[in-house]
Amino acid sequence: MRYLIVGLLAGVASLAAGGASANPELLKMEKDAKNWVMPTGNYANHRYSALDQINTKNVSKLQANWTFSTGVLRGHEGGPLVIDGVMYIHTPFPNIVYALDLKDDGKIIWRYEPKQDPNVIPVMCCDTVNRGVAYVDGKIFLNQADTTVVALDAKSGNVVWQKKNGDPSKGETATAAPMVVKDKVLIGISGAEFGVRGHITAYNTSDGSLAWRAYSVGPDNEMLVDPEKTTEHGKPIGKDSSLKSWEGDQWKIGGGTTWGWFSYDPDLNLIYYGTGNPSTWNPSQRPGDNKYSMTIFARDADTGMAKWLYQMTPHDEWDYDGVNEMILSDISVGGTERKALVHFDRNGFGYTLDRVTGELLVAEKYDPVVNWATKIDMDKSSKTFGRPQLVEQYSTQKGGADTNVQGICPAALGTKDQQPASYSPDTKMFYVPTNHVCMDYEPFRVSYTAGQPYVGATLSMFPPKGKDNMGNFIAWDAGTGKIAWSIPERFSVWSGALSTKGGVVFYGTLEGYLKAVDAKTGKELYKFKTPSGIIGNVNTYEFDGKQYIAVLSGVGGWAGIGLAAGLTEPTAGLGAVGGYAALRDYTALGGQLTVFALPGD
Amino acid sequence: MRYLIVGLLAGVASLAAGGASANPELLKMEKDAKNWVMPTGNYANHRYSALDQINTKNVSKLQANWTFSTGVLRGHEGGPLVIDGVMYIHTPFPNIVYALDLKDDGKIIWRYEPKQDPNVIPVMCCDTVNRGVAYVDGKIFLNQADTTVVALDAKSGNVVWQKKNGDPSKGETATAAPMVVKDKVLIGISGAEFGVRGHITAYNTSDGSLAWRAYSVGPDNEMLVDPEKTTEHGKPIGKDSSLKSWEGDQWKIGGGTTWGWFSYDPDLNLIYYGTGNPSTWNPSQRPGDNKYSMTIFARDADTGMAKWLYQMTPHDEWDYDGVNEMILSDISVGGTERKALVHFDRNGFGYTLDRVTGELLVAEKYDPVVNWATKIDMDKSSKTFGRPQLVEQYSTQKGGADTNVQGICPAALGTKDQQPASYSPDTKMFYVPTNHVCMDYEPFRVSYTAGQPYVGATLSMFPPKGKDNMGNFIAWDAGTGKIAWSIPERFSVWSGALSTKGGVVFYGTLEGYLKAVDAKTGKELYKFKTPSGIIGNVNTYEFDGKQYIAVLSGVGGWAGIGLAAGLTEPTAGLGAVGGYAALRDYTALGGQLTVFALPGD
Repeated sequence: MRYLIVGLLAGVASLAAGGASANPELLKMEKDAKNWVMPTGNYANHRYSALDQINTKNVSKLQANWTFSTGVLRGHEGGPLVIDGVMYIHTPFPNIVYALDLKDDGKIIWRYEPKQDPNVIPVMCCDTVNRGVAYVDGKIFLNQADTTVVALDAKSGNVVWQKKNGDPSKGETATAAPMVVKDKVLIGISGAEFGVRGHITAYNTSDGSLAWRAYSVGPDNEMLVDPEKTTEHGKPIGKDSSLKSWEGDQWKIGGGTTWGWFSYDPDLNLIYYGTGNPSTWNPSQRPGDNKYSMTIFARDADTGMAKWLYQMTPHDEWDYDGVNEMILSDISVGGTERKALVHFDRNGFGYTLDRVTGELLVAEKYDPVVNWATKIDMDKSSKTFGRPQLVEQYSTQKGGADTNVQGICPAALGTKDQQPASYSPDTKMFYVPTNHVCMDYEPFRVSYTAGQPYVGATLSMFPPKGKDNMGNFIAWDAGTGKIAWSIPERFSVWSGALSTKGGVVFYGTLEGYLKAVDAKTGKELYKFKTPSGIIGNVNTYEFDGKQYIAVLSGVGGWAGIGLAAGLTEPTAGLGAVGGYAALRDYTALGGQLTVFALPGD
Repeated sequence: MRYLIVGLLAGVASLAAGGASANPELLKMEKDAKNWVMPTGNYANHRYSALDQINTKNVSKLQANWTFSTGVLRGHEGGPLVIDGVMYIHTPFPNIVYALDLKDDGKIIWRYEPKQDPNVIPVMCCDTVNRGVAYVDGKIFLNQADTTVVALDAKSGNVVWQKKNGDPSKGETATAAPMVVKDKVLIGISGAEFGVRGHITAYNTSDGSLAWRAYSVGPDNEMLVDPEKTTEHGKPIGKDSSLKSWEGDQWKIGGGTTWGWFSYDPDLNLIYYGTGNPSTWNPSQRPGDNKYSMTIFARDADTGMAKWLYQMTPHDEWDYDGVNEMILSDISVGGTERKALVHFDRNGFGYTLDRVTGELLVAEKYDPVVNWATKIDMDKSSKTFGRPQLVEQYSTQKGGADTNVQGICPAALGTKDQQPASYSPDTKMFYVPTNHVCMDYEPFRVSYTAGQPYVGATLSMFPPKGKDNMGNFIAWDAGTGKIAWSIPERFSVWSGALSTKGGVVFYGTLEGYLKAVDAKTGKELYKFKTPSGIIGNVNTYEFDGKQYIAVLSGVGGWAGIGLAAGLTEPTAGLGAVGGYAALRDYTALGGQLTVFALPGD
């Protein structure tokens, strides 16, 4: 009932907000390479910088310039914003936000420390991470763990407004970074392991009033889909397409949470994002395609109405959430320049779509070990076009509950998880931090209790047979769907990448190294061991004429949950603990910013 | 009764251990500048290194080489040991010890994490600090917060033996670094703010059996003093000299704890250390000189028997503990070369003594703001020779309880606290990290309950009138008792200093800067902002032909207790919170090691 009311209200609000004029500030600022104005680098999620003071010739001389401890342990995902001489950084729970003065080695201008009920911690599935804050119009937006959305005055850190986006007592939490589009801030929600029904919500940046909310699953009106106009593979999705793909009321606890990244194309006025796994992880408990979990959505930025969508992994059996970022790049596919959307899915396939229409162009494995599907059906005349061609041996549905299915690749945390890739318009390459991990998966029957875990599977993770590298950092050609080069890493590369006009690509490792490699060849040019494992996203900015590289260290996240939460049982941490046990030999918990620069003033 | 039995046992044990042969390992190793084999640098507490690869000409090019997060927040005092390619670092409570591999950017060889009852935390007066581990014969010695003394196998981190040195339920805790002398490890105890009766205890390194224990206050036999042979100012102290200086049984809860540093002169076979404040801080509750609180002790290393002692601050009224390090240096005093002991006391006087006889040679203020005493009486014919000449206005005894005495300098944390100074045999100068802080002090009547705070005074601290620097880093001529140069610092310099043959002196600041200055002039040559405030002690070592500088960051300690323990009431943290409130604008909690080197392989 509550959902219905909110859905109706959302409809009303969207009408009111529909005519709002565009806010050109971020469109201008995202082009200023001196700043880093949004977590994703730009609306297209390129995480590319036009700065080239640091380049392939001199990056080997890079050195730590100043550092800052956040005072918080556990996993530090996301990265700093830099806006006109001020850096804004955030922490995992309790989600402290610091404004740091760049002209004084990060002297603290203000700190905002929300008071949150620590009971939110046990309902955060995969560490107490937060992926960053957003900025517009002199306000900083924070999506707290307890789902409180806060607008802070960027000058003072004072609260301008706050809104509750969900209810942690039902397992609703937040980890996703907000994105500001025009006069709205987009907010995602987490908790599919607690049966949370996902949605994306747009709040008006001025006062926090609700603009629209679009659920991932359920009735068409609550999903903001039009049975006739919203398309998948060019065809209208039809009436009640989600409801029909679920048995009974399972959709009400059906997952499809929205804890990943958002993208925005200002020319098309479309926002893009993916939805997470259907609940529970025991696929036998939810017959059907479970629409629209595991789905890429393209929505109108003003109204939230879906223009097109694409469900990558219907009826998921492996927890291959579809939330990874959508990188909007105009690239050549099959000899034709396309307005593309490139997405590296947890399921191990790298997808290239036409972002105007949602047409599927390329879908190839970006790690050869992927074995749960042979390929994505690319035959447009086929009834299964766009669907993965499953390998029965790795189905966790087939044997039903309590059957241990062994050797599935990738593991539940996917060939890539939240760690965002980068796109360089110079090389036309995508630089992708990946996992190289397989799993055994045993589903079990689970019943739903609000606020209690609703996982329904026991997992263990391990490197692919005969391998000891649990990660690779790869360069990907999204036009052809081929790996250009690949750097093996001991552990998953859980950090976000940065590419630059200097021809250098940066990423961090779980052991704690910041690495710089040649964008063309992948040759390692520099590395530095930061205080703790890196799961943050590297960025760059210019201050007083000098280019800096910045990254948050702080081991944790799903891959590092054993260290972060002090878990030792191999199957704990949703299966991640055992596989990553050796991480403990390399690093310990921390939360630090390291800012790098070339020597000299 | 318990005390008596332990005292008797100690007497027996000391006889048995008396004939043990000297262990030459540390005497050899302390001379090898490639290693840093004891927390104090060497037995003489010089914190000086003969390495000169990093020197005044090139130190400006220094850069962070690798870093390591300890995974623990709150104050990180002390510093790493370096022994043959392995670095040993420790943390505050829970007192984790890491062995780090220098050839692999600090890859973790082993970690030892004791399980300690967290109830020890509230009985630690001045943050949960620990000042380091000691080494000998393939063993690492840790003095845990809960007073468990542990010997670890240096190769594996396995426990070889452990002994309980005190009882946290009575307020007995540990923060002091052990020192190994010959076949014994010296262990201090903390807790004078809980009425703990201090002692120094020597355990046999082989098996942890008790060698001897010497109390700071009480009966002669328990103090290991000889009424006829133990001297003060060249005269025997006489029978029951401590008991006579207390009213009734107050000595049993009389303080004199031993949480500072130890020194050792192998030629004289004497160990040196100072004792802390008498309990309580309300002086009216403990008439008499309160011997031997606030006292420098010279004891036989084999038997623990005191050769000489010197009480610097009889009947303390300001909490001027005498625990600061004794630096053993052969320097010229009044034209004569002396085997000197140099000590920068909390009370604001820098003392130079003959360490053979305990003869007082020099006692001068090392901060001009010191106002509680005009001078130390240096007239050998005077009955008050060696005693401070008090200024009535700043007596906290005179007005009795509940009288607020204002503007006393230094504050209770002294002109210097635990932060150790360095001595350079090249410049013959002492490099002293100091506090520049005054206080209001209001004693109040307090009754003793075991394990409960037994403080008896409310304090507030602030910079000297008209000043905004709460610290200075000074160079001191101990032969004349004069400041050579002084660098003002915004906050207390709570980090230990390092001087080197390269002519460079290093220290850290509470804001988090590692600074390098010219040993001759104090000119700043380099600074780097580490992740958190530095209260650790800088050291240096050589590995694979390259010189490194290492320091622990992690704001806290008494000066940083507001940040460390999240206190905001200005008089909280034994008075330190208000004065240091602005520290919060510069840094946040953390625990990191930063290792510096010059560029290049």
